[in-house]
Amino acid sequence: MIKIGILGYGNLGRGVECAVKQNPDMELSAVFTRRNPGDVKILTEGASVCSIADVPGWKEKIDVLILCGGSATDLPGQTPAFAELFHVVDSFDTHARIPEHFANVDAAAKKGGKVGIISVGWDPGMFSLSRMYANAILPEGKDYTFWGKGVSQGHSDAVRRIADVKDAKQYTVPVEEALESVRRGENPDLTTRQKHTRECFVVLEEGADAAKVEEEIRTMPNYFADYDTTVHFISQEELDQNHSRIPHGGFVLRSGKTGWNQENSHLIEYSLKLDSNPEFTSCVLAAYARAAYRLGQEGARGCKTVFDIAPAYLSPKDGAALRASLL
Amino acid sequence: MIKIGILGYGNLGRGVECAVKQNPDMELSAVFTRRNPGDVKILTEGASVCSIADVPGWKEKIDVLILCGGSATDLPGQTPAFAELFHVVDSFDTHARIPEHFANVDAAAKKGGKVGIISVGWDPGMFSLSRMYANAILPEGKDYTFWGKGVSQGHSDAVRRIADVKDAKQYTVPVEEALESVRRGENPDLTTRQKHTRECFVVLEEGADAAKVEEEIRTMPNYFADYDTTVHFISQEELDQNHSRIPHGGFVLRSGKTGWNQENSHLIEYSLKLDSNPEFTSCVLAAYARAAYRLGQEGARGCKTVFDIAPAYLSPKDGAALRASLL
Repeated sequence: MIKIGILGYGNLGRGVECAVKQNPDMELSAVFTRRNPGDVKILTEGASVCSIADVPGWKEKIDVLILCGGSATDLPGQTPAFAELFHVVDSFDTHARIPEHFANVDAAAKKGGKVGIISVGWDPGMFSLSRMYANAILPEGKDYTFWGKGVSQGHSDAVRRIADVKDAKQYTVPVEEALESVRRGENPDLTTRQKHTRECFVVLEEGADAAKVEEEIRTMPNYFADYDTTVHFISQEELDQNHSRIPHGGFVLRSGKTGWNQENSHLIEYSLKLDSNPEFTSCVLAAYARAAYRLGQEGARGCKTVFDIAPAYLSPKDGAALRASLL
Repeated sequence: MIKIGILGYGNLGRGVECAVKQNPDMELSAVFTRRNPGDVKILTEGASVCSIADVPGWKEKIDVLILCGGSATDLPGQTPAFAELFHVVDSFDTHARIPEHFANVDAAAKKGGKVGIISVGWDPGMFSLSRMYANAILPEGKDYTFWGKGVSQGHSDAVRRIADVKDAKQYTVPVEEALESVRRGENPDLTTRQKHTRECFVVLEEGADAAKVEEEIRTMPNYFADYDTTVHFISQEELDQNHSRIPHGGFVLRSGKTGWNQENSHLIEYSLKLDSNPEFTSCVLAAYARAAYRLGQEGARGCKTVFDIAPAYLSPKDGAALRASLL
């Protein structure tokens, strides 16, 4: 059994707990939290709830620590810190800072003789894999990534920060006609506005000026100004009832040409339709926790990404069983 | 530069020649043929055309030999024979015989200190990878593979073997309603007939009995009896004009559940739409030839499949460039 620790018990941490339950070769040993452990109720019988301060004491009792914090402030410090003590897996998703994060985790993991796998999830993660395989196979082609339909946490937060907004959810929606154009092999050049629309469901404080809030959303730089945005004002009850889930997904496409004179066209498409963004991300984290453990057993050290890991390491089946059942 | 040899110059061999041209770190050294080399015209300037009997003499002049023969009679002998001399890649696709082929190639490659990668292409190949990743991520779920719309060489051959059939092409067509049911997360149990239909375009010999030929097609065991089959009788001109290409493709889906009580559904879908089945397969072979070469440089030995190879080995970019551009 691979002994798993979870650091951070929000949506992602709870998702990892569920994923561990589905993997018969893993068991959850402990959940670590910044909150008072006595206030945190977990679902797994027999697993401990501990303070984040206690993590080092679990060095010999946990094989892989799955880091479930945020990329902005948690993971840049936590992943390198704990990669010295455990094999670690995180879902670091600030693309621009990946080289720096990689270097930090690599140094720490090598110092501790451990394996650290960063940026695991679906984007970065499975979408990255899809882009990479497709680029290697079709060197002459064009890449497209569409996200949604799904809840963007960052955009929802941005709307909630507006004065007189009580609550809000924002959906990113891919433009069907743009997707279809890519699928038809037309290799369109698409602007930001042509690829996605944004749809907001907003609960106002009493007495708020709806027109003013709508204007503020639509013109918000970076978040909404470059998109066609629809704003719906609804009640808190309706928001709670119809918009409490965290669905997401998207499409990665590569359209390419082959033949001596590029006479043939090909389309590779990978897509995800997810009821729960954090639970799916958690499932990917759990599979790569298995890989981290096995690579560690083989003597591998340092930081890795999904690009560096042979697919077979993710599966509980051995090579012969994989070849017989899935090849 | 990675020096490539091609064994067999049919559709697949010509496709590999085109793929090598698209990969700037590869060059075609020689094409080997069973025909009289003087009768074989290739497209690449500077590459040699040689008899298959000359292959061993190229041991020091070729890094990777890509085997472009058929799975029925060519590859079971050729891949092990040449894996002792070169790193080799093949597209062996007789699923039931993969364990035996793997063992033979493994023994030969280890004896010669080489890497052999077998069953590379799209199915087996990219579809296998998609199934494997999806199974590792969603342990509780159901797999579906649909093929087409595309030309099945085996079924076309079967129709051509019927008396009074002059020429024929057979298309395998996925049933849209079945695909949609899977996409809706309904986890249907699908019979053979519910998943695919078969469409035949047939040129008759003069004076043939069309009704008799149609009946013979529709009732042919294994090939057509279990499917809804449509037969169109057309002229040789029409067949040549509208059905001379070799398109194919298909869909791999996994529908799975997550959450403590499996309350959330997820769909992973990978699809290919290919103008030319052999040219796309060739592109995959070329990418894995790069992997074979690099693994060989690192000292790896023996037989591998797509499951055993970290994605980064397929790309001409190094780790830092991959992380910066595709993660």
